[in-house]
This record gives sequence, structure tokens and C-alpha cells, in this order.
Amino acid sequence: MFSLTSRFAKAVLVCVTLLCGAAYAADSAPQLDYPADYRNWIFLTSGLDMTYSGEQMAGHHMFDNVFVNPEAYKAFQATGRWPDKTILVKEVRGGQTKGSINRGGTYQQVGVMALEVHAKDEKRFPGQWAFFVFGDAKPAAAIPKEAQCYACHGSHGAVDNTFVQFYPTLMPIAESKKTLAAGYLKDESAAQK
Amino acid sequence: MFSLTSRFAKAVLVCVTLLCGAAYAADSAPQLDYPADYRNWIFLTSGLDMTYSGEQMAGHHMFDNVFVNPEAYKAFQATGRWPDKTILVKEVRGGQTKGSINRGGTYQQVGVMALEVHAKDEKRFPGQWAFFVFGDAKPAAAIPKEAQCYACHGSHGAVDNTFVQFYPTLMPIAESKKTLAAGYLKDESAAQK
Repeated sequence: MFSLTSRFAKAVLVCVTLLCGAAYAADSAPQLDYPADYRNWIFLTSGLDMTYSGEQMAGHHMFDNVFVNPEAYKAFQATGRWPDKTILVKEVRGGQTKGSINRGGTYQQVGVMALEVHAKDEKRFPGQWAFFVFGDAKPAAAIPKEAQCYACHGSHGAVDNTFVQFYPTLMPIAESKKTLAAGYLKDESAAQK
Repeated sequence: MFSLTSRFAKAVLVCVTLLCGAAYAADSAPQLDYPADYRNWIFLTSGLDMTYSGEQMAGHHMFDNVFVNPEAYKAFQATGRWPDKTILVKEVRGGQTKGSINRGGTYQQVGVMALEVHAKDEKRFPGQWAFFVFGDAKPAAAIPKEAQCYACHGSHGAVDNTFVQFYPTLMPIAESKKTLAAGYLKDESAAQK
């Protein structure tokens, strides 16, 4: 069950929301139900303390675990593209080093700090995709499409507004199916010069 | 599909095998098929550079992604115990920082470095559990039960020879079902003194 387990976790959630450029959206925004079953979905990857700015949060570690609904994963494996009704879930958990017999590196803590969702609905969402941040198990309203996260995903995501370049089982499929986005290919070309 | 993608990956596999105290076991040892479908199983956790000795491998990062077969996960959720035919898979992947738009922290690389499996079979394995290391998609022979990994898991695993203390969705279940092992409780008691 989803729970925010500390004041720090709540602070992270506020940061995530602000980074996406807006507080919760107006009542008229499209809504999405809390994806209660996501831990039974397909795991895509886990990253630790990833940042696009280079800034790190001092004194804390955060893992991002990414899951996708099984129907969308199956479709991506076959086509290299996300079908309608794709739901990607990013679960943020704290990391710690000392505990039990562990003496180095970082492992995942019990409490969930935040849950961010990126969902595709061709009819309901402007631009087909929308972001949601869940603070509890209630439905959430879409983050407005002017928020920075939409522009960044649109410009740099390897496939259809998503960061498939960080999903190790899917990137080779996108490469072989030739579904990589023009913006991503431009980034890679520039990086190699 | 499983593949060892570099000389470094092969070196990691050799290290993993040696850490478990033995080269591949004799022909008479129990065998296990390569769990080809494990990326469709239930994700338990991911750790980065975890070590029980405190020693770190210089210049390289390694993620451990842990998966379990869905039937076993369901049984654990209901009982706090692992049923017969539980299969836990630890997939080792390299980590990197610089790539695409990422500027800090660590994300997972495409190539799989090693696949270690811990399986329960009450009839076939002495002590009910056995470890396997897969170098390719062929069946593997059980690591002999004298190897260090068995003793460490038996002494320090939170539930039935397994490190449930590092699986954030399962540890609260084991606590509430009171299925924590005596050795683990002793470790925790000693750590708090």
C-alpha cells in the first residue's frame, strides 16, 4: 500500500511536483486512478540518484524503480512503440548503506517517497501523454502540459516522449525496430562530435 | 536474451562463482533450467554496489536486480513464507553515470553481467535450497552446499535462507506474519546493543 513515511518523503513529493512546474492541476484536468497493482507489472529499470542537472541532494539517496503495464510491454517488444493506454510508473524509494549485514553500496528502504506516472491516452490527453504525481491512493489530476517535464521528455526521450534510453531491455528493441525519435538521434549525434 | 557482453562481465561471473566457493559443480549435482522468462516475473528490489565485506570494486558500478516467480510472490504475500519451487533471480548489470542527458547518479547498462539463482526444491536439493550461476542459457549445476553462500544465507537471511530484509515490499509482511528467522533476530538484537 502506498504511504508517505516521513517528512523527508513529503518534501521530496513537493519537490517533484514543483519540478514539473505546477502544483496539482485544476479540477477540469484529466484524472487517472492510482495504479494499485503496479508492483505486479513489468519492471523496466532502477536508477540511483540520477539527475539531468548534475545537482545532487546532499545526505540522501533515492532509487527510481520504473514499471510498465504488461500489455504495453508486450506491444513494445513486438513493435518498438508504446500502444494507447500505456502506463509507466516511477516509484521513488530512499536508499541506505548500513543495515543488517550490508557494509557498502546502497539498498532500498521500505517506505515509498513518491509515485510519478506517465500515461498515454490518445483521446483524453492533449499531446497523447500526461504526467501525474500521486500523494496517496486517490485519483490524481494531470500536470498541466506547459510544465517542463513534457518539453524535456518530448525533446530528449529516445522513443515517443519516454526515456527508453535508460530501459536496458527495451533500448535494443527500439534500435532494431528503428523507432528512435529524431530529437534523441540528434542529441546522440551532437554528443559524438 | 542472456549474453555476457564484455571481458569485464566475464570476470564478474568468475568472481561470483569463486565467491560461492567453487567452480561449477560435478555432473551429479542437481540441475536447473535457465529461467528464460524472469524479466516477466515480480521485481523485488535493486541494489547498487552492495557488499557484505565493505570492499568495493574500483572503477565499476554494479546493480543487482532481484526477481521472483509470481506464484512464490503470491504465496509469500499470504503467508510470509516461501513455498516449494520458489525461484529467486539476481540479475547483475553494470551502472554508468554519463550518457544521454544524465549528469549524475547511476543508471543501468544494456548488457547482463551475470545471473545468479537461488531456488527451493524440498525434494531435490539438500537443505531445500540451492544456488546456481548461469553463464549462458543452458541448464546449470547446483553450487555445492559447502560453499560460503549457503552458510551466510542460512545465518543472516531474514526469512528461510533469503535476504528478505532487503526486499522492501516483503519485509513488512514477514514482520506482521512473524516469520523472521531466529538468526536474523539475533543479528538485529546484537546490532541494537
